[in-house]
Amino acid sequence: MKPNSMINSTLISQLASLIGQANVLHGHETEKWQSDWTGQYHSTPLAVVRPATTNEVASILNFANTHGLPVVPISGNTGLSGGTACNNSLVLSLERMNRIRSLSPSTRIAVVEAGVIVGELDNAARQHDLMFPLSFGGTGSALIGGVLSTNAGGSNVVHYGSTRDLCLGLEAVMPDGRILDLMQALPKNNSGFDLKDLFIGAEGQIGVITAATFKLYPHPKTYATALVAIDDPGIAPALLNALQDASDGAVIAYEYMCEKFVQHYHSLHPEEKRIFDFSSPCILIELASSSCTSLSKILQDVLAGAMEDDMVRDAIIAQSETQRKNLWLLREAAAEISFHKHPVVDTDIAVPLDQVATYLRLIPSRMKELDSHYTDIAVAHLGDGNIHYTVWPSRDDESLLQAMRIAIDDQAVALGGTFSAEHGIGLCKLQSMEKHKNCVALEIMRSIKNALDPNNILNPGKTIPK
Amino acid sequence: MKPNSMINSTLISQLASLIGQANVLHGHETEKWQSDWTGQYHSTPLAVVRPATTNEVASILNFANTHGLPVVPISGNTGLSGGTACNNSLVLSLERMNRIRSLSPSTRIAVVEAGVIVGELDNAARQHDLMFPLSFGGTGSALIGGVLSTNAGGSNVVHYGSTRDLCLGLEAVMPDGRILDLMQALPKNNSGFDLKDLFIGAEGQIGVITAATFKLYPHPKTYATALVAIDDPGIAPALLNALQDASDGAVIAYEYMCEKFVQHYHSLHPEEKRIFDFSSPCILIELASSSCTSLSKILQDVLAGAMEDDMVRDAIIAQSETQRKNLWLLREAAAEISFHKHPVVDTDIAVPLDQVATYLRLIPSRMKELDSHYTDIAVAHLGDGNIHYTVWPSRDDESLLQAMRIAIDDQAVALGGTFSAEHGIGLCKLQSMEKHKNCVALEIMRSIKNALDPNNILNPGKTIPK
Repeated sequence: MKPNSMINSTLISQLASLIGQANVLHGHETEKWQSDWTGQYHSTPLAVVRPATTNEVASILNFANTHGLPVVPISGNTGLSGGTACNNSLVLSLERMNRIRSLSPSTRIAVVEAGVIVGELDNAARQHDLMFPLSFGGTGSALIGGVLSTNAGGSNVVHYGSTRDLCLGLEAVMPDGRILDLMQALPKNNSGFDLKDLFIGAEGQIGVITAATFKLYPHPKTYATALVAIDDPGIAPALLNALQDASDGAVIAYEYMCEKFVQHYHSLHPEEKRIFDFSSPCILIELASSSCTSLSKILQDVLAGAMEDDMVRDAIIAQSETQRKNLWLLREAAAEISFHKHPVVDTDIAVPLDQVATYLRLIPSRMKELDSHYTDIAVAHLGDGNIHYTVWPSRDDESLLQAMRIAIDDQAVALGGTFSAEHGIGLCKLQSMEKHKNCVALEIMRSIKNALDPNNILNPGKTIPK
Repeated sequence: MKPNSMINSTLISQLASLIGQANVLHGHETEKWQSDWTGQYHSTPLAVVRPATTNEVASILNFANTHGLPVVPISGNTGLSGGTACNNSLVLSLERMNRIRSLSPSTRIAVVEAGVIVGELDNAARQHDLMFPLSFGGTGSALIGGVLSTNAGGSNVVHYGSTRDLCLGLEAVMPDGRILDLMQALPKNNSGFDLKDLFIGAEGQIGVITAATFKLYPHPKTYATALVAIDDPGIAPALLNALQDASDGAVIAYEYMCEKFVQHYHSLHPEEKRIFDFSSPCILIELASSSCTSLSKILQDVLAGAMEDDMVRDAIIAQSETQRKNLWLLREAAAEISFHKHPVVDTDIAVPLDQVATYLRLIPSRMKELDSHYTDIAVAHLGDGNIHYTVWPSRDDESLLQAMRIAIDDQAVALGGTFSAEHGIGLCKLQSMEKHKNCVALEIMRSIKNALDPNNILNPGKTIPK
């Protein structure tokens, strides 16, 4: 049976027999899933199925596998790489699998389903003075299944790690409907291949993640937050090491904004100049503690030393929660600033921390070669060497945009970095995968995909270049 | 060509043509590799090859794959699960790949080959006030390739994680000689499947790890160490949480020793009673700091509170480095005590932290059902719920020993735990894998093994039950 021949009442009624009529959407009911958050990708779902249990996911996948029907798993649809775009596929929405199965304050472990909103898990943890530390713009709408499938990162990775590092176990359904239960909540479990981590970040290529166990952390009781003006991002490793050593690794955010970014911010929000009026690159530093130690004093001492050593030109330390939030407004304006005009090239590269300054020095000349009137900004999760470099070309020419993307990726790889730090591959980085990923790694990925999804029904055409 | 027909000068000379005569050992020259550290496993190497470069490893594997010759990779041969035992196989020793390729104090990254001794990497790091934090009995002889292939753990996992958590990238050679280069030293790199973690802990089933990049950590400047006497290991989660919260996660060791263990220690070392004279289960607690904060005060305060709450009966806080080392002598006596008589059943299970007390309460009655005159002790990496439960049966009867092993594993799994926390599967836990591992996980492991090592030349017969 060919997929197209199934766009009919037979398909709908067969799916309805598995999970109930109300949970099989078709026609105009699928509108919500016809484009993604970025608006760049448009989809044509054959139908959207909304299972509520792992067994229902299994029955859908078994059905799809039997009929060679492509399936695109989808959670919050907040990804940035087109990983959920579909072309005449069955869309499998995890949103009804939204139970927090358990939350143990004594072991600081939560067991949650793929459809739980990231922020809701954090809210549940906070009722016990705990937190789920994943922190990025979309935590109010991103779902657990998506952050696992893309190994989401964000601003606190420097301390707490990416989604992968927070996850102890998971449950997934294989393309033929078999259920893989690796839900043990154990920090040590050396019983065979590390399949958990194979599914995390696999963008739904080899199975559909339905639930996971996560570590929770004590909610910080105090923060120490500073915005520092610097001359040269080359000081990044030394300043970070000084902060980490003085605070016993309490740095939870270490975020970079270039000079032009700060200027943009002040042109959009001139009233904020009363908070700070730097005209240089800045680093936003945040330390956190669960024990009310005198973090502010530590931060102040390190910054005083860094000024003496000419690493830091100026600094503002937040003296209240309001001031702290005001400093964060600068960093949080990244999306607003990056997308304030079009066309735009937004990227997600990373280089080793000691190569960030070199990258930022070299990349503008490569852009200039391509377009002498380009403009740009750079913000970075600096502690991870993860740079979101944004370019606005002077003309709307897709071949120019593409040449810029290629140059940005090439330069990152040339410095020992990656073309995809945290957003994943999806559709948008397939070319970079083909060009830059170690070719043996690509062959291994294809072998594993073929071994585990021999009918190629799961999210076909994404992640792994043909 | 059948393996057995190759035990001749032809095989030796073919191998010698690849890596030089001096690096192909045979006959009595292979004696060192004919048994393992535990003395439980005996091997019959066809030859031992000692390549010095990744390309030499590749040429050997390509040769072996072409001729269907089984290959057992071996590093320090210090494993505890028979993972390097061989039967008429080529033994591939990584010991000559012993270069520290680079060590960057500013990014705190080391790039090392598989044959580097774990302790030597740590020594190299210490020259820069850094450390490689993996800590277990064998770090003076275990090699990097082995700790990666078994995902070694130990006493500091509660803070620094297992080998997996310390490794940012790796290089491996596939069974057919292709070289997989995933050596980027990036905390964020979402470019396709997480192959790094698939190779870590895979016990050489899918490729031979030849090099890796590792995170290094600041060497602690101060420690606060205590031995506390408790009544009930059920207090373990609450005491650990109190310590972590008060110290901002500075607990680097949280080790349990049962009452009988302490008695054994004192019977072997009566002079140590002057250090402590507890007759109850004990927890050895260590906090560490890179910033000379007053950890002793924090530890003292938490323990004072724990005494008031009746969690802790008595406590000794080390007042000097000598006292600290004396307290550790107790924990470090585990191997001496566990193997002081034979026959012995030594195990490596883990349960969630809030199930440790239940496990320790239930398991003796299961042993008693099997052997009314057994004796036992338990030590644990308590922070990880990882219990090394040791039983001495009253008679030397392999079927009794096996029944005990099975009961020990069964009870761990029944409480949501694992039969293999940190030692891995090798040969010795194949039966438990078959019995307890999720059957879909086993099927996936077989699929991946078959896809990546179709001729089954790498460490055949281990890790994955048939």
